Amino acid sequence: MPDKPVPDAGRRSEKSRRAIYAAALALVAETGYPKTTVEGIAARAGVGKQTIYRWWPSKADVLLEAFLDLGEQAAARQGDGQGDGIPDTGDLAADLKAVLRATVDELSDPVFEAPARALTAEGMVNEQLGRRFVAQLLEPQLELYVRRLRSAQEAGAVRPGIDPRIALELFVSPLAQRWLQRTAPISHEYTDTLVDYALYGLAPR
Amino acid sequence: MPDKPVPDAGRRSEKSRRAIYAAALALVAETGYPKTTVEGIAARAGVGKQTIYRWWPSKADVLLEAFLDLGEQAAARQGDGQGDGIPDTGDLAADLKAVLRATVDELSDPVFEAPARALTAEGMVNEQLGRRFVAQLLEPQLELYVRRLRSAQEAGAVRPGIDPRIALELFVSPLAQRWLQRTAPISHEYTDTLVDYALYGLAPR
Repeated sequence: MPDKPVPDAGRRSEKSRRAIYAAALALVAETGYPKTTVEGIAARAGVGKQTIYRWWPSKADVLLEAFLDLGEQAAARQGDGQGDGIPDTGDLAADLKAVLRATVDELSDPVFEAPARALTAEGMVNEQLGRRFVAQLLEPQLELYVRRLRSAQEAGAVRPGIDPRIALELFVSPLAQRWLQRTAPISHEYTDTLVDYALYGLAPR
Repeated sequence: MPDKPVPDAGRRSEKSRRAIYAAALALVAETGYPKTTVEGIAARAGVGKQTIYRWWPSKADVLLEAFLDLGEQAAARQGDGQGDGIPDTGDLAADLKAVLRATVDELSDPVFEAPARALTAEGMVNEQLGRRFVAQLLEPQLELYVRRLRSAQEAGAVRPGIDPRIALELFVSPLAQRWLQRTAPISHEYTDTLVDYALYGLAPR
């Protein structure tokens, strides 16, 4: 985490931080990661370059934090409660479907989509950046599924031998691939189907 | 498809084509798609720019064909028979596991990995290129899984209501995401597990 601004910077700092986040996300969406610079972010946000370097050591740090903030805002707006984990109503299928439907909505939001796509693409060819984004953004989200699946395992709704970290990929990864590679449309009906196939399997019961 | 070279160009053309494929794949792996140019490919392959334009209208066409050729060579080398479809021994789990194990080996081959990663990343932010690569490279491979799953459906090994185009994503997409985003290691044991989870489901039977 960056150092907090000094207390007397107060409200002005919060406003600058918002402007810097917005500028960073807009620039990476428009020009891609390699052409996004701290100088460019500062100019677009209307702040000095030193203001950015006071809080963040590099453009990767600004972008990572801007993106984390975007996810938190989206979760708060949709009230999907992902910040507090996946709901546990006792109905695993219903809980997974609710969270995946909210994810479909978020992935379809252009404010989120353009920077997410640009950063994911860069992370594939820039291993260091990719590993940071996975560790700090993606894995904490996947951990929420691990916990929900473990709770289901304890309740007898998931077989005891199943590894939750692999199991979650059966519904999370198909959605990610359709969205990233545009292999086919995404919809609530689609993610509902993924959950049903993953829980009950393709083979006859 | 590009025009075939004139017949009297014979063996020399085949040699040039191989050199052009290799140069195109090496350049996109080293510098990324945006910085790869027809001029650069020609220089590295030791041919004139016009030789390339005689066969392919753009760098996207050269790369697409170079990549298709790479996949065909890998399939021939491994003898995995993917060019002729997925084997149908009557044992769906065994057939899927065999093909996915061969895919893990291919994805771990640096000759394949670097250009595949660069082109997939570019396709995520360059929608036109992405759609071409998906339509011409990815979907034809996925269609082989659709056919194998339909055959399994006819044999009673897959439930009648299942949509094969969605079902295949339960094992193909997790492997793709682990490989592209480096979320976790890939191995034969991992893809075997994916097949078992997808076929038999996470819920108790």
